[in-house]
Amino acid sequence: MIVGTEWLIEAFDCDADSLRELTVLQSVFAQIINDLSLKIVGAPQWHKFGGEGGVTGLTMLTESHLACHTYPEYRTATFNLYCCRTRPEWNWEVNLKEALSASDVKVTIIKRGIDPQSEITNPKSKIVGGEI
Amino acid sequence: MIVGTEWLIEAFDCDADSLRELTVLQSVFAQIINDLSLKIVGAPQWHKFGGEGGVTGLTMLTESHLACHTYPEYRTATFNLYCCRTRPEWNWEVNLKEALSASDVKVTIIKRGIDPQSEITNPKSKIVGGEI
Repeated sequence: MIVGTEWLIEAFDCDADSLRELTVLQSVFAQIINDLSLKIVGAPQWHKFGGEGGVTGLTMLTESHLACHTYPEYRTATFNLYCCRTRPEWNWEVNLKEALSASDVKVTIIKRGIDPQSEITNPKSKIVGGEI
Repeated sequence: MIVGTEWLIEAFDCDADSLRELTVLQSVFAQIINDLSLKIVGAPQWHKFGGEGGVTGLTMLTESHLACHTYPEYRTATFNLYCCRTRPEWNWEVNLKEALSASDVKVTIIKRGIDPQSEITNPKSKIVGGEI
């Protein structure tokens, strides 16, 4: 039984300074939550690692959760969006190129609640197991 | 550049009552965090959905994050453990069979910070892309 869909996002060659800015990442979260009409449960959690370190963000949702981790030293950001309710596709590529100056964005979609290998999809490379 | 490892877990045919019990899931989180010497950042977040609903748990870690969502109606629980620091394998199968009476546990491992499709591994079915 499929209980939810998870989007795993890798954003490459981002602007390193943006990956250290809480407000930049918080703005990305706000845009995702607004555009997909997600509902926040409790207080979003944010942590800025010291010095030149990156940012971790976690938001609990009625629909499940949204997470990000940034690595300014590698100019990389990763996101997870796990939704138990069917949601439209968010344009990760366009939006993260704009917000983080990413040069490349990979999106992998995994259906949860079944053997994940049977339903992994990646819109940019191939689709396995039918419709997204 | 691989920036972390993510374990995606699906536990099937669990005891439905256990999936509604915050204390049961909190105990699983405590065991994972203790066994893998993970460090908690901020306050762990827990939410019990109303009535016969399940539980959502989110814990921010120095190493990234740990999440779970339970679906008593489908006797299913899913977990995500994202670690930026190399950690030993946790025995999800044995531990979740014991804690949740799961009859089957699937573990999928994804290296983050690269195109995830190139490095997805599942110890129970096949290994793609070399060592875990």
